[in-house]
Amino acid sequence: MSKATRNSGPDELELILRLTAKLPVGDSVVVGAGDDCAVIDAGVPGLWQLHKTDAVVKGIHFTSDSDPRQVGHKALGRAMSDIAAMAGTPRWATVTLGLPDGFDAQRIESVYDGMAALAQRHEVSLVGGETVANPDRLFIGVSLVGEVERDKCILRSGAAVGDGVWVTGELGGSIAGHHLAFTPRLAEARWLAARFKPSAMIDLSDGLAGDLGHLLNKASAGAELLESALPIRREARLRARESEAAKPPLLAALTDGEDYELCFTLGQGQAVDLLDRFKQEFPDTPLSCVGKIVRQPGLKIRQKTGLMEIPTRGHVHFQ
Amino acid sequence: MSKATRNSGPDELELILRLTAKLPVGDSVVVGAGDDCAVIDAGVPGLWQLHKTDAVVKGIHFTSDSDPRQVGHKALGRAMSDIAAMAGTPRWATVTLGLPDGFDAQRIESVYDGMAALAQRHEVSLVGGETVANPDRLFIGVSLVGEVERDKCILRSGAAVGDGVWVTGELGGSIAGHHLAFTPRLAEARWLAARFKPSAMIDLSDGLAGDLGHLLNKASAGAELLESALPIRREARLRARESEAAKPPLLAALTDGEDYELCFTLGQGQAVDLLDRFKQEFPDTPLSCVGKIVRQPGLKIRQKTGLMEIPTRGHVHFQ
Repeated sequence: MSKATRNSGPDELELILRLTAKLPVGDSVVVGAGDDCAVIDAGVPGLWQLHKTDAVVKGIHFTSDSDPRQVGHKALGRAMSDIAAMAGTPRWATVTLGLPDGFDAQRIESVYDGMAALAQRHEVSLVGGETVANPDRLFIGVSLVGEVERDKCILRSGAAVGDGVWVTGELGGSIAGHHLAFTPRLAEARWLAARFKPSAMIDLSDGLAGDLGHLLNKASAGAELLESALPIRREARLRARESEAAKPPLLAALTDGEDYELCFTLGQGQAVDLLDRFKQEFPDTPLSCVGKIVRQPGLKIRQKTGLMEIPTRGHVHFQ
Repeated sequence: MSKATRNSGPDELELILRLTAKLPVGDSVVVGAGDDCAVIDAGVPGLWQLHKTDAVVKGIHFTSDSDPRQVGHKALGRAMSDIAAMAGTPRWATVTLGLPDGFDAQRIESVYDGMAALAQRHEVSLVGGETVANPDRLFIGVSLVGEVERDKCILRSGAAVGDGVWVTGELGGSIAGHHLAFTPRLAEARWLAARFKPSAMIDLSDGLAGDLGHLLNKASAGAELLESALPIRREARLRARESEAAKPPLLAALTDGEDYELCFTLGQGQAVDLLDRFKQEFPDTPLSCVGKIVRQPGLKIRQKTGLMEIPTRGHVHFQ
């Protein structure tokens, strides 16, 4: 099972909106709740800090069959993906382990090994943590503090009518394995911010329809996607072929979640130059222009048969 | 139920030691895992950052009968108490909510209200958070970043033979209510650091015996406490009187946990001056000198009947 099969329901979304509406924040908070990370002016000359917290939970984000090293990789990688979405560099992580009754210490150590390996690769310091009891299941909370040059930070807001909509990698069918083994797009995001400065960016964790929806809400605009341009993951097509109960591939690409890819917007004049230089710099990372920002609110997708409207919130209705 | 009735077992302690022994850390990490908070040189002139993560879990740290505002207060207050132990100032908090199936949204909002009220009182910004499913019980993870002047930061290490051992507040019987309503000793700790600079400090969350044990380990020294000097909370005495199964009050004061008080060490020459000025500055906060650091390792307590040795680790054996 994965988050892909249990997206946030409307109750949860409404609750978050109600909770975050009344959070106390001081002057040092550049961007509070509502973006991929909080953006903090902590007094570091030239830099902003990015604060993020996230968790993976057994039975939701991984199962007892999952490779524990991959579970650790995922736990830290998810938070890294949010730092990437703001073109930041992850620096310091703390971990809260909720340990189930009769936990397997060796398995927990492997979780940590997976986390430590990813941390090391990105020069992130694991600076501490805490264990508490969570009797029924393993709960791995990760808090990550990163930093970004003040003039390079990219927010969810800023998309403009006419901008192209871009995604890295492939979408859908993540549950077949990608969700445990993805590479957070840190290098790509920093390169993009330095060379092209996207107008808005988000990481794809809840599916393109929902996450692009956040960019559209911030911009009070809409988007028109092109079905033939969507980079649908092979596994999403395979699953659809193998089971009638599986989502059609297009729907999987739009709503599966856990892609951990970047979705960003950029003025169309730069499209050719971007494609060209990105391919040279990151030959192994697919990059696709999948549509454009339009004035009319809402998300639409152009298919051979015409234009179809896609809900951007409460994508559980799809299922 | 409270953590007081389910302290970390030897398995958990050993696991933490194994896990933290191999964490990757960079040059910016002044103090990593093993103190109340991690101490980070994040590039802020004159300041260090303190990073802390912690959690409270239903059935462990609170029950379904607990006042949800107090639950929120406790969730944030625990992490604040760790920032206090290093004489720091808490600044930015992020929250991960693990929501059970069929959660009560109104109750969760009240948890947040309790957290927000405490945050506001200490000018802490709640900068965001995440919700995940934790099907069986509510899990509230809190990450807190604070700061401290570099020359004012107080570590667990540094206690010297001859120093007095001090505690704020009262000890034991926290489960009767204090554990949900305590005030993190932030003001006291900062005042102490500015005026007297304790040689070592820790917050009391696992009971005086265990937590003082950490200071002693770091100092490769021992301590001798005086039974008559221990500020035993009234509720610990009451519980012992009302039930034969309850811990004797002395044992409760040494091992109950969740006191959220400060324990610190200080050269004995300053004792009278400290007592005098502290009482003027904080008339409502008890302060007691409960013993002294001695060369001989181990923790002993002087009773009318003589000197008794007290285990400082695996205090579950007491029960």
